Amino acid sequence: MADPAPHMTPDEFRRQGTELVEWIASYMERLEDLPVLAQVEPGWVRAQLPDHPPAEGEPWPDIVADLDRVIVPGLTHWQSPNFFAYFPGNATGPSILGDLLSAGLGVQGMLWATSPACTELEQLVLDWLLELTGLPQRFSSKGPGGGVIQESASSANLCALRDLAVRRGAEPARLRAYVSTQTHSSVEKAARVAGLAPRQLEAIDVGPDYAMLPDALARAMAADAAAGLAPCFVAATVGTTSSTALDPVPAIAEVARAHGAWVHVDAAFAGSAAVCPELRFVNDGADVADSWCFNPHKWLLTNFDCSALWVADRAPLLAALSVTPEYLRNASTDAGAVVDYRDWQIPLGRRFRALKLWFVIRHYGAAGLAAHIRSGVALGQELAAWVEADERFELAAPAPLSLVCLRHREGDEATQTIIDAVNGSGHAYVTHTRLDDRLVLRVAIGQARTERRHVEALWEQITALA
Amino acid sequence: MADPAPHMTPDEFRRQGTELVEWIASYMERLEDLPVLAQVEPGWVRAQLPDHPPAEGEPWPDIVADLDRVIVPGLTHWQSPNFFAYFPGNATGPSILGDLLSAGLGVQGMLWATSPACTELEQLVLDWLLELTGLPQRFSSKGPGGGVIQESASSANLCALRDLAVRRGAEPARLRAYVSTQTHSSVEKAARVAGLAPRQLEAIDVGPDYAMLPDALARAMAADAAAGLAPCFVAATVGTTSSTALDPVPAIAEVARAHGAWVHVDAAFAGSAAVCPELRFVNDGADVADSWCFNPHKWLLTNFDCSALWVADRAPLLAALSVTPEYLRNASTDAGAVVDYRDWQIPLGRRFRALKLWFVIRHYGAAGLAAHIRSGVALGQELAAWVEADERFELAAPAPLSLVCLRHREGDEATQTIIDAVNGSGHAYVTHTRLDDRLVLRVAIGQARTERRHVEALWEQITALA
Repeated sequence: MADPAPHMTPDEFRRQGTELVEWIASYMERLEDLPVLAQVEPGWVRAQLPDHPPAEGEPWPDIVADLDRVIVPGLTHWQSPNFFAYFPGNATGPSILGDLLSAGLGVQGMLWATSPACTELEQLVLDWLLELTGLPQRFSSKGPGGGVIQESASSANLCALRDLAVRRGAEPARLRAYVSTQTHSSVEKAARVAGLAPRQLEAIDVGPDYAMLPDALARAMAADAAAGLAPCFVAATVGTTSSTALDPVPAIAEVARAHGAWVHVDAAFAGSAAVCPELRFVNDGADVADSWCFNPHKWLLTNFDCSALWVADRAPLLAALSVTPEYLRNASTDAGAVVDYRDWQIPLGRRFRALKLWFVIRHYGAAGLAAHIRSGVALGQELAAWVEADERFELAAPAPLSLVCLRHREGDEATQTIIDAVNGSGHAYVTHTRLDDRLVLRVAIGQARTERRHVEALWEQITALA
Repeated sequence: MADPAPHMTPDEFRRQGTELVEWIASYMERLEDLPVLAQVEPGWVRAQLPDHPPAEGEPWPDIVADLDRVIVPGLTHWQSPNFFAYFPGNATGPSILGDLLSAGLGVQGMLWATSPACTELEQLVLDWLLELTGLPQRFSSKGPGGGVIQESASSANLCALRDLAVRRGAEPARLRAYVSTQTHSSVEKAARVAGLAPRQLEAIDVGPDYAMLPDALARAMAADAAAGLAPCFVAATVGTTSSTALDPVPAIAEVARAHGAWVHVDAAFAGSAAVCPELRFVNDGADVADSWCFNPHKWLLTNFDCSALWVADRAPLLAALSVTPEYLRNASTDAGAVVDYRDWQIPLGRRFRALKLWFVIRHYGAAGLAAHIRSGVALGQELAAWVEADERFELAAPAPLSLVCLRHREGDEATQTIIDAVNGSGHAYVTHTRLDDRLVLRVAIGQARTERRHVEALWEQITALA
């Protein structure tokens, strides 16, 4: 008989798990003092580790020792209160524990039957999320539509786009899809993966607020239709990545409707704001969109990945994505009594991601979620006011939520110098974009640990550098 | 000033985290006594929970109390030693801790710069995995190829397939892709999502061992080429889902090569076996395949999701999937000094999944990983021998690894009765398939907790029912 595999016993798991929880709690306490952007050169992390895997298992303390020695210096600390880059990606206590539980249970929810709780809890929390954000009940799982958690907005967009193409039955090469010049690259990627040629995805002009111009969309769709093409899909964005511009969804939907085109709304960052009743302008048009998504893994205190997608009618999505081989058939599915989420996504397998959203919603409650969003928006508005009051700087775009886009009035070089100095200092991490071909410093506020003093310190650093 | 959000402090995280670790350890200890397949009716889980989200945050003990009350009864226990369904999905201690750490760090590795450790550790562990499995160095990150972790084999297949279409530049409607009648449904789904019409994906016949017939493939590709079509992609399977049939990859690759078609190998389950030198027949053809994937999240003690994909040449993959908007540009990427994994996958964002694979490899070592696989194969071979020795049963297919396909000689009804009785009893969970249009009971061995006594008990139950 060969040696048995050295599986970790429940008691060892207790011990190592408790130690790792302690390590993570202490990482949380140290976060503020760590340089936000990783300071290592390419290849540094790998060079610290052995080139070959171990022949025999290693003792756990050796593994944990490498976390501080190799991993932490190689991180860009997304959970730092001084992380103002991209958009926030909050990993809060309840969401970490939700992921721990998901890993510990180790179930795979491709079918209702492979763990009913995985499917039913996901339907429940996505219905809860509709209620929390004031999104319309037409997306509820209790009607012909429903919600699903996807691993990213890109996949969600791809499903919706691909779905459309299948649904329309138009000749593939004649399909035309529309975005704005400010739409996230994920939609372009989704179109590519779905087999659309570059000419089949048209970028519509935006106005001075960087929001899509419905008139320009109407002209493009009409010209395509007149040329015998098939306008089939419009992606509107609520809160663009560069500047949180808000596409006018109702007007866009009206234009799209005239051509029978699917309207998908990507509210990846901004959608979470709707947990505050006073910010529900981000939901404008939800009553007429075909699909809607936003990412609790950005601003809603839930760790990556957790992207919520709703459709008003699930039939075309299922028609596009359902493939049932014999080995996946089962009585519950055959009876039509259940939802099998594998038919709502590209991969077959799926983790129990609803747990973390459930933990987050229950831990914070509606009031706690709103308090977090409200705090970020207040800080964003305050920073925007400071920028406007300083004659050396200007706002590069409206700041409707908590992203502030600013630039030095002297031009790109001055702005770039500030960005490089801030990031190089390790005190904070900001990213850039270009608007009207001018460089922009983006300050995205919304990290759970960010307080007023962190935004103040950043602004002090920026102005000192000016 | 509004109320602050009730974020969980590091000390609260310590307390709740330690309690949850204890809960999971105790779940591990109870696993063997729980009914494997969930016994609840559709709607039961949801009916136990409030229809509306809480207005205020709830105390943590109330949340945890619902785990035993609602979640556990609603689970199908994939980690039970009596789980013989589908393929195993092992969530071992080290992999759970890897996921906990990934959640706790909360970094997002879309770019090298957004956490260098996330990218470099992934390159390292995928190179380690090549060495552990004896796969060829042509897939190493140190050459023109390289490996990447994908969330599922479906996505990996899709990337490879889509990549090909772009690379070939053939007219989309003329592309033809080939699978066998036994290929996993994920490839069909990937083809759909990539915009291929059903007629563009051809299912090639298999022989009596359920492996693809290279002669049949050669005939189909030649006929298509003669008809002016563009044969471009062949998906070979090493270890099919129904019966772990092994497609003859070298012969398939030779046929495909003559047409310049891409050869992708899906070794989702069986690929892990190669950690045992004596089982490296599963690697046949790896020296000539364009892409290769297997899922450590199935048989290699790493929890879902962790699908490893390698390509011999990364250029076409990047050409297909790289889209760089301004806000993702950075000095390291512009200098070409680093790998940005967002260009290797469909979604933009990515979790730090390399951690769990790193923990698993270090905890078990090469010897421990091999011991686990060897134990599963030994049990599978033993069960296959019992089936062959019992005149009431027969093997429905060869059992080269640890999946045993059997049926009652009296026919489908007798086999179905046994499947239903086993699953209904809660003692074990097996699934079915059809081979040559006859019902088959699949016993997939490989769960980390499964010992000889569990397989014996299952066989006793089956024979008692016969």
